[in-house]
Amino acid sequence: MKFIIDEKVKFKHCDTAGIVFYPRYFEMLNDTIEDWFDVLALPFNEMHKANMGIPMVNIECNFKQTSFLGEVLQKELSVIKLGKSSCALKIEFIEKKDKSLRVEFFCTIVSIDLAKKASNVWSDELKNKMNKYIENKDNK
Amino acid sequence: MKFIIDEKVKFKHCDTAGIVFYPRYFEMLNDTIEDWFDVLALPFNEMHKANMGIPMVNIECNFKQTSFLGEVLQKELSVIKLGKSSCALKIEFIEKKDKSLRVEFFCTIVSIDLAKKASNVWSDELKNKMNKYIENKDNK
Amino acid sequence: MKFIIDEKVKFKHCDTAGIVFYPRYFEMLNDTIEDWFDVLALPFNEMHKANMGIPMVNIECNFKQTSFLGEVLQKELSVIKLGKSSCALKIEFIEKKDKSLRVEFFCTIVSIDLAKKASNVWSDELKNKMNKYIENKDNK
Amino acid sequence: MKFIIDEKVKFKHCDTAGIVFYPRYFEMLNDTIEDWFDVLALPFNEMHKANMGIPMVNIECNFKQTSFLGEVLQKELSVIKLGKSSCALKIEFIEKKDKSLRVEFFCTIVSIDLAKKASNVWSDELKNKMNKYIENKDNK
Repeated sequence: MKFIIDEKVKFKHCDTAGIVFYPRYFEMLNDTIEDWFDVLALPFNEMHKANMGIPMVNIECNFKQTSFLGEVLQKELSVIKLGKSSCALKIEFIEKKDKSLRVEFFCTIVSIDLAKKASNVWSDELKNKMNKYIENKDNK
Repeated sequence: MKFIIDEKVKFKHCDTAGIVFYPRYFEMLNDTIEDWFDVLALPFNEMHKANMGIPMVNIECNFKQTSFLGEVLQKELSVIKLGKSSCALKIEFIEKKDKSLRVEFFCTIVSIDLAKKASNVWSDELKNKMNKYIENKDNK
Repeated sequence: MKFIIDEKVKFKHCDTAGIVFYPRYFEMLNDTIEDWFDVLALPFNEMHKANMGIPMVNIECNFKQTSFLGEVLQKELSVIKLGKSSCALKIEFIEKKDKSLRVEFFCTIVSIDLAKKASNVWSDELKNKMNKYIENKDNK
Repeated sequence: MKFIIDEKVKFKHCDTAGIVFYPRYFEMLNDTIEDWFDVLALPFNEMHKANMGIPMVNIECNFKQTSFLGEVLQKELSVIKLGKSSCALKIEFIEKKDKSLRVEFFCTIVSIDLAKKASNVWSDELKNKMNKYIENKDNK
C-alpha cells in the first residue's frame, strides 16, 4: 500500500523559468510526510505535545523532469525499511495526467524524544500502521 | 457571494513559537487569489500565456489572533471595488472551528499586459464573473 | 537616524516574471527588523530565551515598482511612533543604483511576554536605543 | 581552493523546535551556488539573458547536526567533478564557532540552453574558472 496525496503546482513554487524551484519540492516532501502522519493518527501538533519529533537524517533526490505551473503532482509515499527508531522512505512525485516521474526522494526520518534529545523507539501501534506502507519487494 | 477555500496550518508555516510566521500568510493570500482565478476560469498558467498578469499594488493587513499548527483556516475572499483594470479585495482567514478571525487583508490587484508593460482593462466576461463576489454593502 | 542594510535580490525571491514575488518581501521585512534588533543589542535568540517576543500586529505596504533579479535593495528602517509596548515602523526598500522606491511598509510590532502571553513594556534601555531611530518630523 | 561564504541562521529559517527547517537549507544551498557564479563572473541575471540555465539534477544530503537561530553557517563549496556540461559539487555547512559540520550536500548541476531546451557545453573560460575549485584528491 502507498500513501498518495495530490498537490497542485502553484505560483509560489515556480521560478523565473516558470518551473518548480527545487527548494519548494522539499516543502512538498515535508507536507507529504506530515499528511501521512495524519493518516497514521499521529498529527504533528499532537506528536510535538508528546515531546516527539521526527527529524530528517538524509535525503537523496533525483530531479527527473521539470514541473510546470498548474500541473498536479501525485505524491506517492512508501516505506523502504522500518527500523527501531528510524524509517527509510521512498517518495515519488508523478504528474497526474501523463504519469511521468518528476522527482524521486529516498530519505530517512528518525523518531526522537525532544525532551531527552535522544532517539526514541517507535511505539508498536505506530509501527504496525507504518508497516502497511512497506514497499512490496517484488515491485522494487 | 464569497469565494471560500480552506487551508490547514502546516509545519512549514510555523515559527519557533509554534504559530504561523506572518510572511507565510502572504503565500496563503496569493494561493487564495490563484484559486479564485481558477474558479473565474482564468487559471494563472493560461493567464500568463495570454500575456496577462495581476500584480499586487498594495496590502493592508491586520493580524488579529495567532494561528497554530494543525488548525484549519477558512479563507474568505470578496470584492470590495471593481475598477476598469483594478480590483480591491477583502480576504479574511477565519479559524474553522471557533470562527475567530485570525487575519484580515485589504488589497488591490491590477490587470497588466506583460508584453506592453501597461495596465490592461478587465474583459467584460471576467468582470461579470468577478462582480458576483462584490461584497454586499449592507454587510459591510 | 535610520537603520540601513542591503539585500540582494536572489533567484529564490523571483517569480515566473523574473521579479520579486511579494510574499518574499515580507521575509526581507522580517530580516530587516531582526538585523535591527541585533544592532539594538537584543538579538532574537537572546530575546526568546528571555521569554520576549515581538509579533507583528499590522502591516500596510505599497508596492511602488517591481524589483529584478540581481538588483540590490537598500532597506531603510525608521521609527514612526514608540509606545509603551508597541513600536510603529516605516521601512522602505530602495534600489541602490537608481534610488527608486520599490516597496514601503508601515507596520507595528508589540512587545509580549511569551510566558504570560500578555503585552510587555519595553525596557528603558531598549527604548532609549529605539528612540534614536525616530523619524524626524520635518522630513515626514 | 574552496568558495566560502557565510550565512546567519535567521528567524525565517527556523521551525517550531527553534532549529533550521530542512527545506530552508536548500534555499541556502541555491544561494551558495548563485554567489559562486557571481565570483565566476556569470551572475544568474546575465546567465538567463544569455539563455543559459543550470538546473539541479540530483542532490544527496546528510543532516549531521541541527542548527540554531543566531548561529553563523560557513558554507563551503568545492567541485568534485567537472564534465562537458555537468558539474558535481560538494557543499558543506559548517558552524563558524565550533567548526562542527551541520549539513553536507553532494549535488550535480548541468548547463542547459533555455531556448533549445538541451544541454549546453560549458565555455572554456567558465570551465577554467570552475576548475580552480576542484577538490584536492588528497583531501578527499
